[in-house]
Amino acid sequence: MAATLIALITDFGWRDGYVGAVKGVIMTLNPEVKILDVAHEIPSHDILAGALVLEGVFDYFPPKTVFLTVVDPGVGGKRRGIVVEVEGKYLVGPDNGLFTFVLKRKSFKAYEIRNRDYLLPEISATFHGRDVFAPVAAHLSLGVKPEQFGPIVESAELAFLPLIEPIQTPEGIQGEVIYVDRFGNLITNLKPMDLPQGSFIIEVEGEIIREIKSTYEEGEFGEVIALWGSHGRLELATKRGSLASKKGWGIGTKVKIRKP
Amino acid sequence: MAATLIALITDFGWRDGYVGAVKGVIMTLNPEVKILDVAHEIPSHDILAGALVLEGVFDYFPPKTVFLTVVDPGVGGKRRGIVVEVEGKYLVGPDNGLFTFVLKRKSFKAYEIRNRDYLLPEISATFHGRDVFAPVAAHLSLGVKPEQFGPIVESAELAFLPLIEPIQTPEGIQGEVIYVDRFGNLITNLKPMDLPQGSFIIEVEGEIIREIKSTYEEGEFGEVIALWGSHGRLELATKRGSLASKKGWGIGTKVKIRKP
Amino acid sequence: MAATLIALITDFGWRDGYVGAVKGVIMTLNPEVKILDVAHEIPSHDILAGALVLEGVFDYFPPKTVFLTVVDPGVGGKRRGIVVEVEGKYLVGPDNGLFTFVLKRKSFKAYEIRNRDYLLPEISATFHGRDVFAPVAAHLSLGVKPEQFGPIVESAELAFLPLIEPIQTPEGIQGEVIYVDRFGNLITNLKPMDLPQGSFIIEVEGEIIREIKSTYEEGEFGEVIALWGSHGRLELATKRGSLASKKGWGIGTKVKIRKP
Repeated sequence: MAATLIALITDFGWRDGYVGAVKGVIMTLNPEVKILDVAHEIPSHDILAGALVLEGVFDYFPPKTVFLTVVDPGVGGKRRGIVVEVEGKYLVGPDNGLFTFVLKRKSFKAYEIRNRDYLLPEISATFHGRDVFAPVAAHLSLGVKPEQFGPIVESAELAFLPLIEPIQTPEGIQGEVIYVDRFGNLITNLKPMDLPQGSFIIEVEGEIIREIKSTYEEGEFGEVIALWGSHGRLELATKRGSLASKKGWGIGTKVKIRKP
Repeated sequence: MAATLIALITDFGWRDGYVGAVKGVIMTLNPEVKILDVAHEIPSHDILAGALVLEGVFDYFPPKTVFLTVVDPGVGGKRRGIVVEVEGKYLVGPDNGLFTFVLKRKSFKAYEIRNRDYLLPEISATFHGRDVFAPVAAHLSLGVKPEQFGPIVESAELAFLPLIEPIQTPEGIQGEVIYVDRFGNLITNLKPMDLPQGSFIIEVEGEIIREIKSTYEEGEFGEVIALWGSHGRLELATKRGSLASKKGWGIGTKVKIRKP
Repeated sequence: MAATLIALITDFGWRDGYVGAVKGVIMTLNPEVKILDVAHEIPSHDILAGALVLEGVFDYFPPKTVFLTVVDPGVGGKRRGIVVEVEGKYLVGPDNGLFTFVLKRKSFKAYEIRNRDYLLPEISATFHGRDVFAPVAAHLSLGVKPEQFGPIVESAELAFLPLIEPIQTPEGIQGEVIYVDRFGNLITNLKPMDLPQGSFIIEVEGEIIREIKSTYEEGEFGEVIALWGSHGRLELATKRGSLASKKGWGIGTKVKIRKP
């Protein structure tokens, strides 16, 4: 059975109609498919942000979903376009690291998009979202098999983002902020398995956090709180406010875990 | 017959993928339902704005529509999650006042969301939009009855926003701006029934408005005009410009109605 | 056969619920139609931007698509509402120039919206997107013929934007920037047929560009590059950055083509 759902993740924004051109191409090829907007205001060219957004939604979509994921600063250059089959779902987009966080923890098969039969007749050098990835996603939703788009690409040949893993320091573990969401919550690269057994404190820019809360509501107004966020990562936040604005912390801010 | 339409109103924005996680959960449970995006850029944590947006669209949707409405600064805390049936439509979201303007003028039945059978197996403390409200909305769309989600909640126990009603002053009536839209139009809490019979003038920050126009186009460029807006409320605007930017007026700005 | 697809292009934004009211009206009239969001963050009242967005997506949608296009600073005033049939697709919106770039290159038939049977019973003076254009689009999708909405409007009576065409100067051709997209790419009014045979250089604010690249990737970081963009127009850009921010160039910036 063919896929019936295409989920869109892009940095195209809602001003310029780029999202619409993609949808028009899909609808022309498969008028029956459902298109769902996941995120379009990913910061321009921010592959890491796109990769984290994809990771955050992947598991919640049903089998056969096609994720059309386009944050593509290298469009028209040498980077490949790829289709990846993973857990019965499909990823379509540029081979630039966007799929890093989904692929690193799962087994998958990747194919280079080469077969011109499934692309628009004219391919611009600046908008592969419309001319390449949209028609490929539509054809997948119509039942075309991933291997029909082109040759297999070995995992070792694919582009992956450098994983920004927590590091061991003399004092303990040091992670960092890798994402700031709309609410000003700071998502770190620290996962439960990274944290030591026994008691510890968290230090961020000289500020000490002594316990991990369960909810945003447990802190006092203005207090920096740490909790396990919906991404499964340690998150820094403040009750009903934007911690990012309040403290000026952002991507790259160090988060140190050490003995009290 | 089951509902076939879920309308989304959130402060999740279009950057982070939170909207997508909600949609994935819904699609997994009910692949046939239609999901419509109503508003996702409600200012973070602004319950009043969310409540006014919901009020502005409620009457325009068909029976059986499920409104999944999530502006939820208290997520994970003590506030209830609720399902409300009103005029054959359904509201799903936190019990924090979001439904104030729809409920205050209609009869309804509210139920607390308690039945874990209809929620995701794991419930995070920070994202009930995905883990609680999305599956409840999906199950409603599949024909589950509101009373199946949990016990009835009496109206007196629900959270309502304080109604910011116009007040009587020695000089006349005083209303205020309660919402500023994207165009910089200022929506007040004054409705036709609040205004006196006979002639009157409107005074805002010393500026006098002598008549209520029918359209934005009737004023001169730069003139402050008052008219009955699409919300059924007195609205202050200026021809083809943003009155909010021009004058620096905003939420809370007083609007006085008095004898000329 | 009726249309099955309504594409929305507006300046309503995603904060205020205006998009939702439009969708609710459509769904009430035709629960089967597919609604696709194309663009909602067109700058407020910017008819030129809306017209360029519509032009950029029109060809990519299938026959029978209804484009509901609303950037309507003159709402409630004397401007007409119109339905236009062009290449088997339909445009619905205010007669204020929004359709300029689609109509100037195609043959079409336009009709004034007059028949109250197809509108909401009450029509506000400030929100024709909801009260006039949404129900007209829904009725078109149900198979109502364009001529049923009202009398034909001759092309000469329609509003068109002044075409900002390149001009001939003693030195060569002078075009200008007419649109800046989210990425800070500058789209000009120069098309391939406007450029001279033989060698030429491009001069922008004293900066000289000596060749037209094929892709964004061919330039050096920081270099101003020119290429044929996805709109079929000469576009100025810089590799992986925003040229608009970098140089401060924007709409109206002159782009001179002359002999080396």
